[in-house]
Amino acid sequence: MKWNGWGYNDSKFIFNKKGQAEFTGKRYRLGGMVLPTFKEWIEKTFGASLEHKTTSRASLNVNDVPPSIVNEEFLQDLRATKISYSQDAEDRVFRAHGHCLHEIFVLREGMFKRIPDIVVWPVCHEDVVKIVELACKHNLCIIPFGGGTSVSSALECPEEEKRTIVSLDTSQMLAESGFCTGHEPDSMEFSSLGGWVATRASGMKKNIYGNIEDLVIHIKMVTPRGIVEKNCQVPRMSTGPDIHHFIMGSEGTLGVVTEVTIKIRPLPEYQKYGSVVFPNFERGVACLREVAKQVKKSWMLASLKNTNFSTRRVLMVQCFWQLITKGFLSLQFKGFDPNILCVATLLFEGDREKVLQHEKQVYDIATKFGGLAAGEDNGQRGYMLTFVIAYLRDLGLDYYVIGESFETSVPWDRVLDLCRNVKERIVRECKEKGVQFAPLSTCRVTQTYDAGACVYFYFAFNYRGISDPIHVYEQIERAAREEILANGGSLSHHHGVGKLRKRWMKESISDVGLGMLRSVKEYVDPNNIFGNKNLL
Amino acid sequence: MKWNGWGYNDSKFIFNKKGQAEFTGKRYRLGGMVLPTFKEWIEKTFGASLEHKTTSRASLNVNDVPPSIVNEEFLQDLRATKISYSQDAEDRVFRAHGHCLHEIFVLREGMFKRIPDIVVWPVCHEDVVKIVELACKHNLCIIPFGGGTSVSSALECPEEEKRTIVSLDTSQMLAESGFCTGHEPDSMEFSSLGGWVATRASGMKKNIYGNIEDLVIHIKMVTPRGIVEKNCQVPRMSTGPDIHHFIMGSEGTLGVVTEVTIKIRPLPEYQKYGSVVFPNFERGVACLREVAKQVKKSWMLASLKNTNFSTRRVLMVQCFWQLITKGFLSLQFKGFDPNILCVATLLFEGDREKVLQHEKQVYDIATKFGGLAAGEDNGQRGYMLTFVIAYLRDLGLDYYVIGESFETSVPWDRVLDLCRNVKERIVRECKEKGVQFAPLSTCRVTQTYDAGACVYFYFAFNYRGISDPIHVYEQIERAAREEILANGGSLSHHHGVGKLRKRWMKESISDVGLGMLRSVKEYVDPNNIFGNKNLL
Repeated sequence: MKWNGWGYNDSKFIFNKKGQAEFTGKRYRLGGMVLPTFKEWIEKTFGASLEHKTTSRASLNVNDVPPSIVNEEFLQDLRATKISYSQDAEDRVFRAHGHCLHEIFVLREGMFKRIPDIVVWPVCHEDVVKIVELACKHNLCIIPFGGGTSVSSALECPEEEKRTIVSLDTSQMLAESGFCTGHEPDSMEFSSLGGWVATRASGMKKNIYGNIEDLVIHIKMVTPRGIVEKNCQVPRMSTGPDIHHFIMGSEGTLGVVTEVTIKIRPLPEYQKYGSVVFPNFERGVACLREVAKQVKKSWMLASLKNTNFSTRRVLMVQCFWQLITKGFLSLQFKGFDPNILCVATLLFEGDREKVLQHEKQVYDIATKFGGLAAGEDNGQRGYMLTFVIAYLRDLGLDYYVIGESFETSVPWDRVLDLCRNVKERIVRECKEKGVQFAPLSTCRVTQTYDAGACVYFYFAFNYRGISDPIHVYEQIERAAREEILANGGSLSHHHGVGKLRKRWMKESISDVGLGMLRSVKEYVDPNNIFGNKNLL
Repeated sequence: MKWNGWGYNDSKFIFNKKGQAEFTGKRYRLGGMVLPTFKEWIEKTFGASLEHKTTSRASLNVNDVPPSIVNEEFLQDLRATKISYSQDAEDRVFRAHGHCLHEIFVLREGMFKRIPDIVVWPVCHEDVVKIVELACKHNLCIIPFGGGTSVSSALECPEEEKRTIVSLDTSQMLAESGFCTGHEPDSMEFSSLGGWVATRASGMKKNIYGNIEDLVIHIKMVTPRGIVEKNCQVPRMSTGPDIHHFIMGSEGTLGVVTEVTIKIRPLPEYQKYGSVVFPNFERGVACLREVAKQVKKSWMLASLKNTNFSTRRVLMVQCFWQLITKGFLSLQFKGFDPNILCVATLLFEGDREKVLQHEKQVYDIATKFGGLAAGEDNGQRGYMLTFVIAYLRDLGLDYYVIGESFETSVPWDRVLDLCRNVKERIVRECKEKGVQFAPLSTCRVTQTYDAGACVYFYFAFNYRGISDPIHVYEQIERAAREEILANGGSLSHHHGVGKLRKRWMKESISDVGLGMLRSVKEYVDPNNIFGNKNLL
């Protein structure tokens, strides 16, 4: 795994000797593929130049890393448990962050002021119980670590924390299985089941399988107050407020999720990708809404992504997609204006007959909204892209381009207004904050519900000439979030709150709502052992 | 509405002059229908005799009713708000109970020790805010009242409550609409939206439309601490633990739900009923499980009810169904043993083509499990029965037959064991507790999920010769609940906890889970204004 970027060491975007962009390694279907026009795109879109390269440190300088301060009594108790642990700088730094832009930027350019003092690797529920007991005994701070893929500053250590910080890494606790859960967040290669529960995760196939709250049957959590769990593994119950919902979304503030019973299914008999091109974003959104209404909870329609070509510039993903499809979606695509057309990718899973039925149904609806079928290949590439897109930011960072995606959920009748207003706000804010080059500001619809949709925004700019690019970036992202909230969007559809979006919690769930969450925290963890300071 | 039984005054089962059972009134499709063999059935099944009739009081004796104690200062403040109220005995008694057996028995034979002192009828959110403020100011106890259909003792006033008890009746707050929500609990004629939220309700069509938690988009609740609500009406969000789930299931202990945004749909284009007879309960359950697996979240399969013929005696519902279908399901039905066959009723809703597809799919699966199609009429009658079955208990009570239904949820692999063990336990307990006549003890599967099912038990017996029948009844029901829990069933699938099932809360959601609920209660309502003593 990379120490200062996304994913595996062998997998990354580079410019090869011919100056062409290329994705390295053999893990992904895109591995080894050359993207002949990418260089031109990044230059045009961001005003970036391959001659202006930033200088990221190639490896971690151990001398920069804050020392590990762990008292000997605790270490003695810990050794007695036989639980693996490490005080190495690399291990601690890896668990000091998620994948927010500012976190990765710090790794490339500086160092975190506070990181975990020690990493522990429990292998079972009982190990976690022992660690929590020791933390209570020695008054330590525990920060649970799943896969480290959060984009909410959830894993950042509070700078002012004086106690020893224990990073509790649950990666050794996952049992293998030969079935599928159907839960496929973009981070699925790296994130963890416990993390999905703690953050209320959502996956690309949620239209078939549901979000994490639809998949979970039973949760066991270890807290300083003791173990919390239900006494049965039933599909649904009414025994007061559902305590699973006290745990899901708690973001490591209450305890450690040690066991989850999750629905599994036989692998689908048949899969079919697809794609549709719409003349514009508005028609695409209207089509998705109609599909959500007609197909409702149909278990066939897995991923219905609407990728918007911004009117000003071509969306990063979309452009990339064009490149890899080698001009399939040529700019003259069936008479659509290339600057405003948009594309939906489709994936159907299930038994063959039903898949074909649903495929027909969706294409019939799409036709009514001016959509044109754009082939299975494009659909499949679009879907695969979800897994490599996270690698793209690292390439941008090499050339002064910083960027991030962020998401929201919104009722159907506000999708278009919200998308337009947020994109415009980003552009306006960039100008006001002195960004020299026009930014990339675009969005897509990634998940659909009967009552609304999840929308992702992509925002990136060239920061040459700006002395504190991360601060500027964060100010603009903050303004974008204000705009989202003002337009009836939520604080987060599935990324969660962490520390990054904490300031809006009261506004989002009301004073009393926040007080309810705090009252649970105070009861379960009165000494704030789980002191990551997320959420509350 | 009846003052001491279920539903409308004009709708009830009686024995007419010829000694034949008949359902009165014109509200229901069954109105005016004569059930020629019902008398024989009730005599045979329970050893009941039409000559031994209990003497229930015909009307409420106002002198029996505890006086209304309300201080004048509060009344003055209340009058200033212009909110309607009543201190009449009838109004107060009607809101002093739900529809547990013991509650109805008390109405017929005695009187509650404690009832609300005053009933108030707010018409809007602001009225509720005023009432809660007055209750805080004058230190009163508020018990929210939706439709009064609970079967968990949720509405019973704590006998030891010394403060004035205000019954806050929300029935004047519901807005009308021309759409359908698809939420159809058996009590839907009488229960309320706020009540559905407060109890985590489930409906007969949940396979199409979902349970209440799937239908709700936004909730506003007034608590002594203030108003709690989210700032947006989105289909899904991840902003910490979902506060809707702190409210759903809170059973009136935290505040009053004043506004709910719920999904609506156009009325379905097409509806089709159906039914299938299986050779036995085991095959029926296996079929339902397969349907749940294959059809998954299909929006077509609304209600899949499996009505079990007990091996010892015929199920009340089933018998009744036989009677009204005039022998259609004759005892020689296609070679099945009438003592062990079982029947599933089906309802498909949606567009015509999809309904027909799904119907075929379900019947194809049923065939594999030895099921035989038994017609649309039977399906429709079975479905309609759900609404009149609650009236049947009142008839039994006239002839010394007391009974109740209670429910649970259970994983698929434990359905059969749980059903068998609970039915046997009931029979055994009856014997041990001195019940003279063999009881009716049977069950049916009423809702299905991918991971399990909801099971209803029907339990009734002739109590002649027993001095304290309600106490005996409750002891047996309690033993049945212990058996349910020991077999991996939940404390409740959708009836909720109230005061009736409170003793098992700690076992059901663990010490820490219960502590979390209590911490929320203490924060939101430190003076226990919402003092119905449910749940915690």
